[in-house]
Amino acid sequence: MAISKTNGTPVSWKQLGEKKRQDLLSSIPKEWLIPADLLPSESQDDVTTWPESSGWFTQEELDITSLTAAELVPRLASGQLKSEDVTKAFCKRAAAAHQLTNCLAETCFDRALTTARERDAYFARTGKPVGPLHGLPISLKDNFNLQGLDATVGFASHVGYPAKSDSALAALLEDAGAVFYVKTNVPTAMMIAETVNNVFGRTMNPRNRQTTSGGSSGGESALIVMKGSPLGVGSDIGGSLRIPAACTGIFTLRPSAGRFPVRNCRSGMPGQEAVASVNGPLASTLHDIELYSKSVVDGKPWLRDPKCLPIPWRTVELPTKLRIAVMWHDSMVKPTAPVARALRETARKLEAAGHELIDWDPVDQKQGNDLLARMFVADGGIAIKKELERTGEPWRPEMEAYTVAKELGTYEMWQMHLERTEFQNRYLDRWNKAGIDALLCPTIPFNTVKNGKFQHVGYTGVYNVLDYSAISFATGFSVDKNVDKTDPSYEPLGPICKAINEEFDAETMHGLPISLQLVAGRLEEEKVIAIGKRVLEVLA
Amino acid sequence: MAISKTNGTPVSWKQLGEKKRQDLLSSIPKEWLIPADLLPSESQDDVTTWPESSGWFTQEELDITSLTAAELVPRLASGQLKSEDVTKAFCKRAAAAHQLTNCLAETCFDRALTTARERDAYFARTGKPVGPLHGLPISLKDNFNLQGLDATVGFASHVGYPAKSDSALAALLEDAGAVFYVKTNVPTAMMIAETVNNVFGRTMNPRNRQTTSGGSSGGESALIVMKGSPLGVGSDIGGSLRIPAACTGIFTLRPSAGRFPVRNCRSGMPGQEAVASVNGPLASTLHDIELYSKSVVDGKPWLRDPKCLPIPWRTVELPTKLRIAVMWHDSMVKPTAPVARALRETARKLEAAGHELIDWDPVDQKQGNDLLARMFVADGGIAIKKELERTGEPWRPEMEAYTVAKELGTYEMWQMHLERTEFQNRYLDRWNKAGIDALLCPTIPFNTVKNGKFQHVGYTGVYNVLDYSAISFATGFSVDKNVDKTDPSYEPLGPICKAINEEFDAETMHGLPISLQLVAGRLEEEKVIAIGKRVLEVLA
Repeated sequence: MAISKTNGTPVSWKQLGEKKRQDLLSSIPKEWLIPADLLPSESQDDVTTWPESSGWFTQEELDITSLTAAELVPRLASGQLKSEDVTKAFCKRAAAAHQLTNCLAETCFDRALTTARERDAYFARTGKPVGPLHGLPISLKDNFNLQGLDATVGFASHVGYPAKSDSALAALLEDAGAVFYVKTNVPTAMMIAETVNNVFGRTMNPRNRQTTSGGSSGGESALIVMKGSPLGVGSDIGGSLRIPAACTGIFTLRPSAGRFPVRNCRSGMPGQEAVASVNGPLASTLHDIELYSKSVVDGKPWLRDPKCLPIPWRTVELPTKLRIAVMWHDSMVKPTAPVARALRETARKLEAAGHELIDWDPVDQKQGNDLLARMFVADGGIAIKKELERTGEPWRPEMEAYTVAKELGTYEMWQMHLERTEFQNRYLDRWNKAGIDALLCPTIPFNTVKNGKFQHVGYTGVYNVLDYSAISFATGFSVDKNVDKTDPSYEPLGPICKAINEEFDAETMHGLPISLQLVAGRLEEEKVIAIGKRVLEVLA
Repeated sequence: MAISKTNGTPVSWKQLGEKKRQDLLSSIPKEWLIPADLLPSESQDDVTTWPESSGWFTQEELDITSLTAAELVPRLASGQLKSEDVTKAFCKRAAAAHQLTNCLAETCFDRALTTARERDAYFARTGKPVGPLHGLPISLKDNFNLQGLDATVGFASHVGYPAKSDSALAALLEDAGAVFYVKTNVPTAMMIAETVNNVFGRTMNPRNRQTTSGGSSGGESALIVMKGSPLGVGSDIGGSLRIPAACTGIFTLRPSAGRFPVRNCRSGMPGQEAVASVNGPLASTLHDIELYSKSVVDGKPWLRDPKCLPIPWRTVELPTKLRIAVMWHDSMVKPTAPVARALRETARKLEAAGHELIDWDPVDQKQGNDLLARMFVADGGIAIKKELERTGEPWRPEMEAYTVAKELGTYEMWQMHLERTEFQNRYLDRWNKAGIDALLCPTIPFNTVKNGKFQHVGYTGVYNVLDYSAISFATGFSVDKNVDKTDPSYEPLGPICKAINEEFDAETMHGLPISLQLVAGRLEEEKVIAIGKRVLEVLA
């Protein structure tokens, strides 16, 4: 039990959660609370159209929030739009998004308006933008410390311990012109592939609230799909950027460790280093992902965080004809019918456009996936258990692996490092031998799943173990119940494969976007984005 | 006890060591064994002059082996010198160095001559060099795997297990034109600051055989001072390049992790990652260090080793006026009189040359040193103990810390990672706030010490924890018994400081070179070398 700081009486995790949820709701100004008569019914699955259809937003608010980051930035930098107006519009739409999907964890609307007015004043005074992200609202996942706000990452034990200073990334972004206004919900310890925890509860996918927006950056993906944010920042240790991007049909970059700063963020497993947690952008377009990535690297993050590498943002010259490997399945779980179709179609179009495609043998994927699973529980779940015990908070059922794990000694951990290094060596050799520019594969085995049904992070997690650069992108294809039927010749690769493919419900998923993953080598962020653009041109 | 592979009987560590030493001696062709009547007496301290004075070498051999790597390369690349002649001269001189200082662990003279002849044939055929190190003999520390040779790193248990393939670095160097001919001695597990183990025994400092050539790359430093190698490669996890360079008055670069490949090397503590083991060159000039470093990075090591970073060799433009911090002592051990004098004189000359010098507060050094010590024994010494137990080999007395250490659990290790990261953060902030280009300080608290007396790796080890780039350079100053007397006002900082300063014996050390360390930021290898050149110009 935690002890109340005010009167010394025990405070349970339930009380802490209730208070936190109330405080969050109270932090939203009355004018941004949706009137009861306008709220869609709980049984309404798709709420993405609500802002336009409800009549609750002004046309100016809708116009502003319909712009992408790359569309907003030149308008803000030229004074065509004021940061205050843009910020207010996104604050209101983010508040709405939260009321419809439960996607927020913290708000700092006062800070946002103060910053925005400073940006406008600077522009009025100098005629120049502050930096490459002048006046742009950027949402942050809950784990990025912002002074004065909690960073609970879903733990009741962290409620009421506001951060003393901004995370290194936030400071860099603010220096580049960004405006912070909300932080977004995550699963407990950020170690579940959906977004659900005992403090804030569950975030839902705005495209169909029966389904998940993914995790752990699933507050971000829900917010962005609702157009409550033009650009968000999440993090990824096993797929936590790519999974929510894929579940909601938006874009992300999982960079290799060292490109973007990680200093002064809340970790779910502090001090864990066998696999690096990285952070990266989520947005509606790949162009926005590039804008963000270049802006961060141009800000010389290596001067702020010793874990960052002094590698400038580089120009990439791609060959006209790309050589791309396709991994049709990962030897553990075959993708469901719509994902398999999107992969086939994308490969076909790439080939038709003159690119060279080869098949990628998934022989190494199982070991990579196993390595990641073992790394996550190497401390026997102690780090997470300690946080839960502070308030008597129960384990989430999704985290069973942590409850049964045995802590490794340092010597055993060293053996695992060796196995991981051998794995990385072998993969690099295969990659070089194949002479490929990138690898195309599913991000997740499905488009999304019903809430509570997520299984298998193998498609993403292996590239965390390898520390390769990767994007998840919306293909433009969507689930079609008339087409996407499980192949009659389908044979499961195992029980999880079987469960996932049997659970695919074309009726529920009909119309939802299908995403894929594109992987390039370690520290090839510029390259994977450039290849992604080519792929999108071919798909357009 | 190890079991003999031939007849199944137990083989003790003593037998394995005896056999190994015999095999090593037998691998030297008779014509390169020094005739008994030419051998200097065991009481002769300085053997560096022996090759010139003995009459055992031809003038051509002496001429060749007196050239630096940077002098040899253009002569080899233009056909002025043949690789075969150069290689034979260095093989012979290395054999002599071994007989005088016990600096070798392995030889591969046949491979060397075969490679050398291939280089010459290539040049004869094409008129071009193979690469930037065309035909140049390069010596390797024992831990670099070369196919068919052991890499015992001082353990009896590794005797008789020849490497199946070349280490990634060796393969890259060979592709660049290098010729391999010897591997050099190290201390047990490479975890002692002198070079001594139960297989090969002790390597001595050729400048005074009563003193140590340092460790763990002390076979290399001895060999290079003897001019038995124009360029050698060692490794460094707490000072193992810089300490032997300083003890013998040669040059080295400790790069940040990721510049030079580490794949397929023997480690003393396999899988340990809290602090990275790196490798780098040892040579008689800083110019040679630069030649090597550029050649390795130009070879794109990131295509061979996933731990390498795709950072090309960069041109550095230094400001005319450098800002350099001087750390006069590290708060634990004050340097002995000659080192303090060299530091004062170097600082004075830099200031006189117009550079800006500030004092560096050693406030953080103790924590950095403690962190390193705890990282080394985090497995409770299990990794090393297992190797010793395989043959009943006893612990070296220098390694007592490993025998009493308690293994950490993974959770505790994560806490140590956090402490290290906080330490790195704080140091970076101080560095940036001071706005310095580099830090100047001792490499070791003394010039060298008598065999068996080495204490305190604090001056080097902190920069391993920080992963900063650093060089150790010979200042041109040498110990002068008439000048270097302990300051009457000297007050020890603690018992180790007292012991070290009391042990300084000006009579023994008279005439020996004094080195210093220059440190730049993480991944600033080009910069630390460029600043080093400036310092040397000022000292010239």
